[in-house]
Amino acid sequence: MSDPTLPDPNRLDPAMLAEIEALRARTADTRRATVAAMEDILHVPFPVLDHGFVRVVDYMGDDGAVVQAARVSYGRGTRQVREDRGLIRYLMRHRHTTPFEMCEIKVHVKLPIFVARQWIRHRTANVNEYSARYSVLDKEFYIPAPEHLAAQSSANRQGRGAVLEGAEAAAALDLLRGDALRCYDTYEHLLAEDDPSRQGLARELARMNLTLNTYTQWYWKVDLHNLMHFLSLRADSHAQYEIRVYAEVLLDLMARWVPVIHEAFQDYRMGGLHLSRAGVAAVRRALSGEAVSQADSDLSPREWRELWAGLGVPAPDETRQA
Amino acid sequence: MSDPTLPDPNRLDPAMLAEIEALRARTADTRRATVAAMEDILHVPFPVLDHGFVRVVDYMGDDGAVVQAARVSYGRGTRQVREDRGLIRYLMRHRHTTPFEMCEIKVHVKLPIFVARQWIRHRTANVNEYSARYSVLDKEFYIPAPEHLAAQSSANRQGRGAVLEGAEAAAALDLLRGDALRCYDTYEHLLAEDDPSRQGLARELARMNLTLNTYTQWYWKVDLHNLMHFLSLRADSHAQYEIRVYAEVLLDLMARWVPVIHEAFQDYRMGGLHLSRAGVAAVRRALSGEAVSQADSDLSPREWRELWAGLGVPAPDETRQA
Amino acid sequence: MSDPTLPDPNRLDPAMLAEIEALRARTADTRRATVAAMEDILHVPFPVLDHGFVRVVDYMGDDGAVVQAARVSYGRGTRQVREDRGLIRYLMRHRHTTPFEMCEIKVHVKLPIFVARQWIRHRTANVNEYSARYSVLDKEFYIPAPEHLAAQSSANRQGRGAVLEGAEAAAALDLLRGDALRCYDTYEHLLAEDDPSRQGLARELARMNLTLNTYTQWYWKVDLHNLMHFLSLRADSHAQYEIRVYAEVLLDLMARWVPVIHEAFQDYRMGGLHLSRAGVAAVRRALSGEAVSQADSDLSPREWRELWAGLGVPAPDETRQA
Amino acid sequence: MSDPTLPDPNRLDPAMLAEIEALRARTADTRRATVAAMEDILHVPFPVLDHGFVRVVDYMGDDGAVVQAARVSYGRGTRQVREDRGLIRYLMRHRHTTPFEMCEIKVHVKLPIFVARQWIRHRTANVNEYSARYSVLDKEFYIPAPEHLAAQSSANRQGRGAVLEGAEAAAALDLLRGDALRCYDTYEHLLAEDDPSRQGLARELARMNLTLNTYTQWYWKVDLHNLMHFLSLRADSHAQYEIRVYAEVLLDLMARWVPVIHEAFQDYRMGGLHLSRAGVAAVRRALSGEAVSQADSDLSPREWRELWAGLGVPAPDETRQA
Repeated sequence: MSDPTLPDPNRLDPAMLAEIEALRARTADTRRATVAAMEDILHVPFPVLDHGFVRVVDYMGDDGAVVQAARVSYGRGTRQVREDRGLIRYLMRHRHTTPFEMCEIKVHVKLPIFVARQWIRHRTANVNEYSARYSVLDKEFYIPAPEHLAAQSSANRQGRGAVLEGAEAAAALDLLRGDALRCYDTYEHLLAEDDPSRQGLARELARMNLTLNTYTQWYWKVDLHNLMHFLSLRADSHAQYEIRVYAEVLLDLMARWVPVIHEAFQDYRMGGLHLSRAGVAAVRRALSGEAVSQADSDLSPREWRELWAGLGVPAPDETRQA
Repeated sequence: MSDPTLPDPNRLDPAMLAEIEALRARTADTRRATVAAMEDILHVPFPVLDHGFVRVVDYMGDDGAVVQAARVSYGRGTRQVREDRGLIRYLMRHRHTTPFEMCEIKVHVKLPIFVARQWIRHRTANVNEYSARYSVLDKEFYIPAPEHLAAQSSANRQGRGAVLEGAEAAAALDLLRGDALRCYDTYEHLLAEDDPSRQGLARELARMNLTLNTYTQWYWKVDLHNLMHFLSLRADSHAQYEIRVYAEVLLDLMARWVPVIHEAFQDYRMGGLHLSRAGVAAVRRALSGEAVSQADSDLSPREWRELWAGLGVPAPDETRQA
Repeated sequence: MSDPTLPDPNRLDPAMLAEIEALRARTADTRRATVAAMEDILHVPFPVLDHGFVRVVDYMGDDGAVVQAARVSYGRGTRQVREDRGLIRYLMRHRHTTPFEMCEIKVHVKLPIFVARQWIRHRTANVNEYSARYSVLDKEFYIPAPEHLAAQSSANRQGRGAVLEGAEAAAALDLLRGDALRCYDTYEHLLAEDDPSRQGLARELARMNLTLNTYTQWYWKVDLHNLMHFLSLRADSHAQYEIRVYAEVLLDLMARWVPVIHEAFQDYRMGGLHLSRAGVAAVRRALSGEAVSQADSDLSPREWRELWAGLGVPAPDETRQA
Repeated sequence: MSDPTLPDPNRLDPAMLAEIEALRARTADTRRATVAAMEDILHVPFPVLDHGFVRVVDYMGDDGAVVQAARVSYGRGTRQVREDRGLIRYLMRHRHTTPFEMCEIKVHVKLPIFVARQWIRHRTANVNEYSARYSVLDKEFYIPAPEHLAAQSSANRQGRGAVLEGAEAAAALDLLRGDALRCYDTYEHLLAEDDPSRQGLARELARMNLTLNTYTQWYWKVDLHNLMHFLSLRADSHAQYEIRVYAEVLLDLMARWVPVIHEAFQDYRMGGLHLSRAGVAAVRRALSGEAVSQADSDLSPREWRELWAGLGVPAPDETRQA
């Protein structure tokens, strides 16, 4: 679990730091469901990428709130019969999703625009983004750390291959940094905010000159069911690295917030495996001791490989060949 | 504002009363935005109709949370410039709706099934309803109070006319009560829960014998923007009385929760008037001192009447005739 | 696949039959994607339960429309590379859901109110339901066929057990029929539509006296992605029989409309199996020839049974015991 | 109404032109609701900005489909009683929105990324966007026409002021063009698609170097109710010019598609005026011949000005002063 230390002051502007300290100093008595591990880190930014962060601004509900809602649905009969953990695992396993919608979390996120463009495709959430029609964006861009400067995969159209190295890497980073800075300088020049002698271009127009690695920020509020859907796609190994690191912080925060649900989510969703109809048939035959090979299954070579890799065993035909 | 007295114990089963007392006794320290007027009434059921209630189970955010989110959107420029109340009223007036999505409320509602069927049409909310597939519904039906036993309006297909009175009213109430009870008795008989000598009909089937005034209950969670949309339709005079009384309790609860937003909502949404293009033209001519009548406006006779009634003045042609 | 014969005229009122014939007689030339198998059955009601039906009123898109949208997403690179069927199966397998949202279907459904209450919980659809505030509902109720008059399961709170038989069944059906009819007669009496000597109760009130097996009807419009989500829950063996029969007709209609997508849906979703993390571990050990039993897995007894039943093989410990 | 001429071939790549011609040549017989004016322009791109377009790819329903759905809701009573136009205007005026959800339109749009970022905030739509993770974006950027090169408004934080002119304008355009080109050249260099001697940077990373005026494209599918909501915000004079021109083309297309609904939309929504509670009071007093001024109204000076401007008459206190 990430550490709830206060953020590196170098990463935050002083006004924001002061605001966070003021927010953390304010406490009140409440009759609402409260999670001590969330109170510990409330408002604290967790760093992501070179200038980004995620911080929890508010939350509603806890493990118990899901149980409470499920007990309304399933009525008196469920009282005493199942203890809470068992009920939560039952709900997760059978995809009874509505009780998980009874919890809500609100985070403040700072992220590069090209990551924001992926993230916003998750429509079932509430968003307030910093508006570059109204205000001037900060001079901050995402520049990949050298170890994440991946080449295009030749096998997979959306994937990454080996990491660029040496002079090639240095040149790429210089280009990215140089173009971002030059575009930002032009942006500032066009705005002419500090030059009363020139008419500044409208903010809503000048922003078009910024590059897609410029940082933006937003408040993002989502219920727990939709958060888990987001995490199942974005904390997955197929997700782009730059959004996956945000999802991983959110997954850590979820473990603090609703530990029992987090465990069930890992067991039934993240750590599970979906078999196709033909995959079930292949596994059945293998378990029954029948000979089975890709050629006589209804699986493509790629599906065949992924099936046995997902199960963590060699493919049956490879075994026999060996 | 409704009074946060504890509910009439005759309306609640003792198990629920004990649960509410236990929930109200539990307090914790929190760094989250907290509203004292909501803490006062948290978990307390407010009675609605003959057996229904609304009670707040949780809430997220306050007036300040909307301001906070708006300031992220509109950026540094808005700091200090506008004070909070002015910003909230600006947002409401210009239908900048996303900041209002940053607050969330969760209520537990007991309501007749025919009301639940209207309510559920508001799709942008989270719901966990008592399931009659799993559990047995209580023996409680809505029977209108005599003063709400309205006749069909002859003028308006969906409206109510005069109230039934005397023997006619008494007969109607007897019929409603008699059918509901008989259907419930059949339901219990079909279930045979207490009769080990007979096989009970499946709960999911037996429930089909219940009448639509049987009470159900649910947890309903909604953000403030969608709550206001619900209230603008259901706290309106055109809404059916039996859902309007729920909306009115929710409107009172909103006044406790976010008083500044509630005031702006009353000023710009509930208390406002929408003029059509032809309505604007008619008002313009009237204000300019021109003669204007329904016949030479593009308004239907009904629109014409509603326009001047909405503005609280006699129609110009009536004035001239007088 | 269901047969596109014209419906049994006894099930439809003559006005509706005439309307359907008129709609079917009207044809036009279009440049839109068109599916001959859908044109064959457009507007024709497919019977469901004793008085219900599903009929397709309109559709947008076909298998090719999903391919077309996916090719915009994945760009030039995908042209020629994959043929259509392969691309559709790739999308289904990797849960790339947005291209499936590019097709839309609109159906007219007649269904009992208690089924409508389950159905409406699928929020991502457009619905126009017959309004009993405005109009009088027909005298039609769902009465189960004797072979579907199931007892409550003793093993499963939401399930059905054996079918009631003999006198017990006859008595149950008589009670259901009797209560529904009596409630409807009261409804008609309260409305007093044909009795000018009495003031009728408002329709919006009188409807509360109807039983939950009364038929309602609606137009339901949904995109293909959300239709598949609906089908995966409601055409499933755990769904209540009375909604499952509607889902099965919709699944047949889907096979006519988008046959390639339907096949992929059967292969990767309906016919698949989801393994939990512990389920993967158990299968891995079984495939590796290790001894594995429920006791030393992390699976509950029920999960253990369901795992091997889903794979269609005896549980490993049972095999050894035998 | 825009002219359905075939697009300027200079604006489209030849492959796309050929595809459009093939699509337009394909016709079929259908029993679905069909709109001749839509068939005329189906698939044809309407130019927007310097490189963008909107083209209709498919549609479902027409004016009659809304009437048909409303008649299911309002039942037999409405038949013959109201003719179609009257019913549509009634629905629009009373915000009965669900029947308008029964029509659906699908468009292919090419638009700058900063416009796409505003547009996507409308969540109730289906979108398939060109993916720069998979494919290489085209070398096309939005550069404002000189007459749209607006300065920042000094009165309104999100507004535009006077147009930049002369050398200042020329310099701004040069900067925008220069940065966009330089960033695109870097992007191509980093990708190294045509240079087998270098390892190209992963597409999902290289795209971050592009400026926000780079064009993207998507399929966007939306129901008519949500389209009208989009248009009421984006075809409005407060919307940014660069999204408003897209909304205006969509509004023209709507006039072709559902002319009666379009007229009602103009009369009751676009051409209407919303008065606040205090606005109603001020108009009432003015119509009643009372003296009324901003100071003794509950309106802010800005609300006061906008009220009378919206009604098209001088403010009462200005009149008296004059």
